[in-house]
Amino acid sequence: MSRQQSINSNQTGASTITAQSPLNRSLRTTGEEIWKRSERINAELFTLTYGAIVSQLCTDYGRNFVQINEELFQMGYNIGVRLIEDFLARTALPRCSDLQETSEVISKCAFKIFLNISPKVINWSNNKDAFSLLIEDNPLSDFVELPMDAMDQLWYSNVLCGVLKGALEMVQLDCDISFVSDILRGDQQTELRIKLNKILKDEIPIGED
Amino acid sequence: MSRQQSINSNQTGASTITAQSPLNRSLRTTGEEIWKRSERINAELFTLTYGAIVSQLCTDYGRNFVQINEELFQMGYNIGVRLIEDFLARTALPRCSDLQETSEVISKCAFKIFLNISPKVINWSNNKDAFSLLIEDNPLSDFVELPMDAMDQLWYSNVLCGVLKGALEMVQLDCDISFVSDILRGDQQTELRIKLNKILKDEIPIGED
Repeated sequence: MSRQQSINSNQTGASTITAQSPLNRSLRTTGEEIWKRSERINAELFTLTYGAIVSQLCTDYGRNFVQINEELFQMGYNIGVRLIEDFLARTALPRCSDLQETSEVISKCAFKIFLNISPKVINWSNNKDAFSLLIEDNPLSDFVELPMDAMDQLWYSNVLCGVLKGALEMVQLDCDISFVSDILRGDQQTELRIKLNKILKDEIPIGED
Repeated sequence: MSRQQSINSNQTGASTITAQSPLNRSLRTTGEEIWKRSERINAELFTLTYGAIVSQLCTDYGRNFVQINEELFQMGYNIGVRLIEDFLARTALPRCSDLQETSEVISKCAFKIFLNISPKVINWSNNKDAFSLLIEDNPLSDFVELPMDAMDQLWYSNVLCGVLKGALEMVQLDCDISFVSDILRGDQQTELRIKLNKILKDEIPIGED
């Protein structure tokens, strides 16, 4: 698959879709239909498996939560650069015309297809180069409670930031991605922030000239 | 949930179910129905997430595959002792009357509910205290290829042995569980062996006397 099958080529266009627009409805339908056709496994097994990873990292890195956050991010990055290929192949979506469209694709297709949730897109920056995903019913942290020493520092679901970082980079979007808040830390909501830095230059993959 | 809601109390009884028996059909139906009602996530995300764990362990333990096998087993054990509660609560199955029935519950309900596969039960020992699961289409290792140095020593899906060990121990079955062969290692099939050592004495959990 060529990296040029990007889901975003230009974030500077006017915001063209709204919650009620046909594209938005179509994205939701696309996400739901692909979800139904997907091979799936039990969510609780996934939750427990992810918990086992975090627990392993806590042991390996002596509860250095800053480093654990980085490890989870890197793990996610490695997953994201592979998952995007599957995503593009299955959705066959054209490039997004702007970041707002990208945000809808992430929420209604990507999260739907892989985790069966559709986070709300909120808190757009004035110049439309950043937004947040409001993640409710996070399958990674179902029934999880953080120990006291982790509550100030650990971003338990940081793998998600890494996945998005890796996936978006593969479609030429260089973004900063991090959690702003997490219910696990006692916050009111779980908010993941995505800020577009720049659009990377298209590269022709080796063998596809 | 009481540990006494065991799925096995006595492995010494005669083998009472066959591939065509009503109980066997009923277990299959139970497994399928619970699977349909389960919260689920995308299998490829799970595959990649599990791959990220193994990869992380390879880094952490300097490619000491014997130790990595043990870590995966221990991770699985921790998952299994929790997953069994969910399993018992959702299936509401009575105790199995013998190990053959247990084998069918594992294959047709447990694997079905959590991984959406039903491994064949094969290679019973003469005295019916051991059997194998023939695992086809293993969701953990989909598209995985082992590097040369791992092929002789790594049991890539060893987490499964740990899960079964933990889960069966919680229902008083002390078993030895290990892989006999794995397609990833160039073997003809992926075979996981379960040998019952003894039935543990029922313990009344604290607070449930």
